[in-house]
Amino acid sequence: MPTDTEAVFDIPLGETPDAPILSITRARRPATQTTTVIAHDGQTRAVEVPGEHALTVYLDKQEVVTLMTLGQAPEALVMGYLRNQRLVNDLAELAAVHVDWATGACAVATRSGVDVATLTAKRTITTGCGQGTMFGDWLDTLEPIHSDATVSVETLDAALGRILALDTIYKRSGSVHGCALLRNTDEAPLLYHVEDVGRHNAVDAISGFMWLDEETGPDKIFYTTGRLTSEMVMKAVQMRVPFLVSRSGLTQMGLAMAQEMGVTLVCRARVGRHLVYSHPERITRGA
Amino acid sequence: MPTDTEAVFDIPLGETPDAPILSITRARRPATQTTTVIAHDGQTRAVEVPGEHALTVYLDKQEVVTLMTLGQAPEALVMGYLRNQRLVNDLAELAAVHVDWATGACAVATRSGVDVATLTAKRTITTGCGQGTMFGDWLDTLEPIHSDATVSVETLDAALGRILALDTIYKRSGSVHGCALLRNTDEAPLLYHVEDVGRHNAVDAISGFMWLDEETGPDKIFYTTGRLTSEMVMKAVQMRVPFLVSRSGLTQMGLAMAQEMGVTLVCRARVGRHLVYSHPERITRGA
Repeated sequence: MPTDTEAVFDIPLGETPDAPILSITRARRPATQTTTVIAHDGQTRAVEVPGEHALTVYLDKQEVVTLMTLGQAPEALVMGYLRNQRLVNDLAELAAVHVDWATGACAVATRSGVDVATLTAKRTITTGCGQGTMFGDWLDTLEPIHSDATVSVETLDAALGRILALDTIYKRSGSVHGCALLRNTDEAPLLYHVEDVGRHNAVDAISGFMWLDEETGPDKIFYTTGRLTSEMVMKAVQMRVPFLVSRSGLTQMGLAMAQEMGVTLVCRARVGRHLVYSHPERITRGA
Repeated sequence: MPTDTEAVFDIPLGETPDAPILSITRARRPATQTTTVIAHDGQTRAVEVPGEHALTVYLDKQEVVTLMTLGQAPEALVMGYLRNQRLVNDLAELAAVHVDWATGACAVATRSGVDVATLTAKRTITTGCGQGTMFGDWLDTLEPIHSDATVSVETLDAALGRILALDTIYKRSGSVHGCALLRNTDEAPLLYHVEDVGRHNAVDAISGFMWLDEETGPDKIFYTTGRLTSEMVMKAVQMRVPFLVSRSGLTQMGLAMAQEMGVTLVCRARVGRHLVYSHPERITRGA
């Protein structure tokens, strides 16, 4: 898969002839590269290592953040990031999302202009995994999910089987997290699957795809290979997805948040095996 | 293990009678709590969930960051965080590190006073795992590790065996990362082992313990259950530890950074099994 920063697409944001246009690149990076390692017995072996690329986001020419990404869906990642950080609230505001790997930059232009300093003034300096989230800012404005949607154990198994069958970067190289969005119907069709070096990137990219495609959360199932910490649950609430399914486990605050915010958490999920941690009233079992 | 915020210790920072004193709490949180889940077959089951607590750090009364932590070594975590973020550069500068779980706050006092706004003025807004690190700031000042230390495969196996034998929170509840620091001698004695909900917290806590105990990196082996991304390698370089060992894998940028900065990376590490990714000249095999 060569880097292709030349491909730029014009996407109309709406049905009407005068709908605003979003100019967007499709700039993937190769998922893995091969390297030589030395095993315990002293023998050399060729293995695959997942990519990790710095992508600096400029919003109306103002530097916002540098994301470390596998680079499989960089435009969706940046869009989801801006959406989840509430730096851009309306898709129609986006005029261009251009990723250029030669400079490691994503230039985002809005129609009416954003003043980043004003939007981020109150935020705390943060770093790394689980260190310094936008917790307070988010919680104040998040509404609990009041959903009477249900999912059957059979549909959950269908969803997990679908994900298991994917040809993933994880299977080739390990060391990446995957997220998927599936429709909550019997067959559990897969809408998006994104892998990235960090679980937050993968979630943000899915959020970016949903935004672009005007998909909403209530009739969906969100799957992640990563642990369900409070941040992950908050992102599910932002996306309004009532079902959050993880191959891994969870933390107390992830659980407390899910109970309070109306998210059904399913952990340690495999086909034919799982544990429901919160809002189990939404999980149905065959008659 | 009850929360014990009453215990405050005075630690002299040096050998001389007039050495400065660090006043420090020892305020642990219970590692796990029990919750009831519903399994695939509809049966209920009691499981352990690891804790996750918000701890807001105030440095000379200025809010710095809110860390989400398991709370096993909060004082060391905060000290390591301040050290690794270069907000406090000299241990003797610290007058007090007081954690109070009733308010979820850690109050840090320095002797000469720190102006947080000045120190953090140039930094980028960041969030979550792998999103927005202090990459640029760090790299500019980091020196490569030029070490002729070696570690034998036998010592590596001894280190891994020691860690495997620990009674960990991971074994009870999953969903946490662990880090350990071992001395690079035949028996590979264990100096510190910390578990936390994020791998960066666990590393920072070990860095905090090293600071307090005036332990340096060159004769040590650093172990983590987490993946070796660029941020993890940079932290090893900051700690001057030449050997970074992971139960998991790595990313391209972690590898590139390790090659350039002189860190020997050992991944997929178990007793009797591992892969050496960088600087294999430091790994010796029995005659």
